[in-house]
Amino acid sequence: MKIAVVAPSCSLHPEAAEAVKAIVASRGDAEIFIHEQCFASAGHFAGPDEQRLAALRDMMADPGVDAVWFARGGYGSNRIAEAAARDLPAAARGKTYLGYSDAGFLLVAFDKAGLSVAHGPMAQDVLRPGGEAAIHRALDWLVKRDPGSLEPGLKPGARALAFNLTVLSNLLGTAIEPNFDGADLLIEDVAEHDYRIDRMMFHVTGSAAVQRCGSIRMGRISEIPDNDRLFGSDATSIVRDWCGRAGIAFGGSADIGHDAANRVVPFDLARD
Amino acid sequence: MKIAVVAPSCSLHPEAAEAVKAIVASRGDAEIFIHEQCFASAGHFAGPDEQRLAALRDMMADPGVDAVWFARGGYGSNRIAEAAARDLPAAARGKTYLGYSDAGFLLVAFDKAGLSVAHGPMAQDVLRPGGEAAIHRALDWLVKRDPGSLEPGLKPGARALAFNLTVLSNLLGTAIEPNFDGADLLIEDVAEHDYRIDRMMFHVTGSAAVQRCGSIRMGRISEIPDNDRLFGSDATSIVRDWCGRAGIAFGGSADIGHDAANRVVPFDLARD
Repeated sequence: MKIAVVAPSCSLHPEAAEAVKAIVASRGDAEIFIHEQCFASAGHFAGPDEQRLAALRDMMADPGVDAVWFARGGYGSNRIAEAAARDLPAAARGKTYLGYSDAGFLLVAFDKAGLSVAHGPMAQDVLRPGGEAAIHRALDWLVKRDPGSLEPGLKPGARALAFNLTVLSNLLGTAIEPNFDGADLLIEDVAEHDYRIDRMMFHVTGSAAVQRCGSIRMGRISEIPDNDRLFGSDATSIVRDWCGRAGIAFGGSADIGHDAANRVVPFDLARD
Repeated sequence: MKIAVVAPSCSLHPEAAEAVKAIVASRGDAEIFIHEQCFASAGHFAGPDEQRLAALRDMMADPGVDAVWFARGGYGSNRIAEAAARDLPAAARGKTYLGYSDAGFLLVAFDKAGLSVAHGPMAQDVLRPGGEAAIHRALDWLVKRDPGSLEPGLKPGARALAFNLTVLSNLLGTAIEPNFDGADLLIEDVAEHDYRIDRMMFHVTGSAAVQRCGSIRMGRISEIPDNDRLFGSDATSIVRDWCGRAGIAFGGSADIGHDAANRVVPFDLARD
């Protein structure tokens, strides 16, 4: 099992790379290749679009690579998502693609192209408090398909989609919008004001495509900055309220979020 | 000419109300009624949804009111926009509705319902540096249809749509999404990071509906917070780049923004 790490958004901390390599070495059940593009830098991004795309496409086309693991989020994978999913090399199929947050743009584009994707921990999560557990959970899924890595509410055979709410809001209506029909839709977010959560829930639940999902489940919405006045409602009430307005079933909580406890959500468990 | 001010988003500063009343009195060409709902407060909002909606609907239904002027932006008009535009009383027609920023949710819902709307200064703009000029510009449009109030690039007979970019991004795909076909689409924003501008431009220009607009013109994108690292591109390059990717004509600059120089953009000049 060979796992390749690329950074389609922002660059990976070298410290995180070392820590992840040490964990992989200590387990002895996988080989990890951290692409040097992970440490490139061009403004906000881990190198220009062309460089990030080329590194990703190289790993997708490499028949020796079993899984492509996204280094971290930030912002930028949307800029290369359509191109990355186009004219897929044969070797791109049969791999797993794992990440979350900004990497959601890639997950959805790849899922749409028939690739096997999962929403779950990324390499840089090792730097979070308790982050080693996140890395083991990711590796347990990639290497062993350990059911213990999975978000516990997933139903075998049912389609699931997991997203950062901001990412989901920003991909609706674009070429990479997925088919939500009947899916278990899980959302999470970090560092967004209550009023932004409310506005995005208006947007997301106002989509006729999203309204066809089976239900919305709410992961952790964390590190909410203080509103300049008290917003008057909390994130759970906001999510529940907009689901109610849109006639979407609110399915309760989901064990995902920007933290070390973030569980794995394969979009298509049947495909895995 | 009677102008009614309501606050469908956040509450109006009493100081702004007094200053606007003084300007109107000094002009002597209009009467202004500042609805008491403007000073209501419920969490983030100028009163609960029901109260904001009722005040707005009352003014829409009042045959003695010639124009409904939105007090200010903030956040919240999306929560009542659909309901406000439903089952319109006869008196709602023949009035002008003026505002921008968060009020864009109402402008677009009302325009879709056949009402006469314009993107332009709001009452609370009087508190900006040079804000009196913004108030006179708004009044000159409402009272006299002064062409000097208009955004100078507007073409007679051509349809225009003006939006805060964040508002536009969050209404795409909802029930209030407008018809963009052939329109001159003007955007502006305030206090959003470069990476958010980039992500929203990805989203907006990725919409097949938006791609049918005539061109995108760029108003002022102001008070951009510092990125944690230099983003690597400025707002003009970002807007121009995404227009290019999407095959949308970039029409240059537009004289709108979150400032006292903000000019008036009627969505349908022919209707006025």
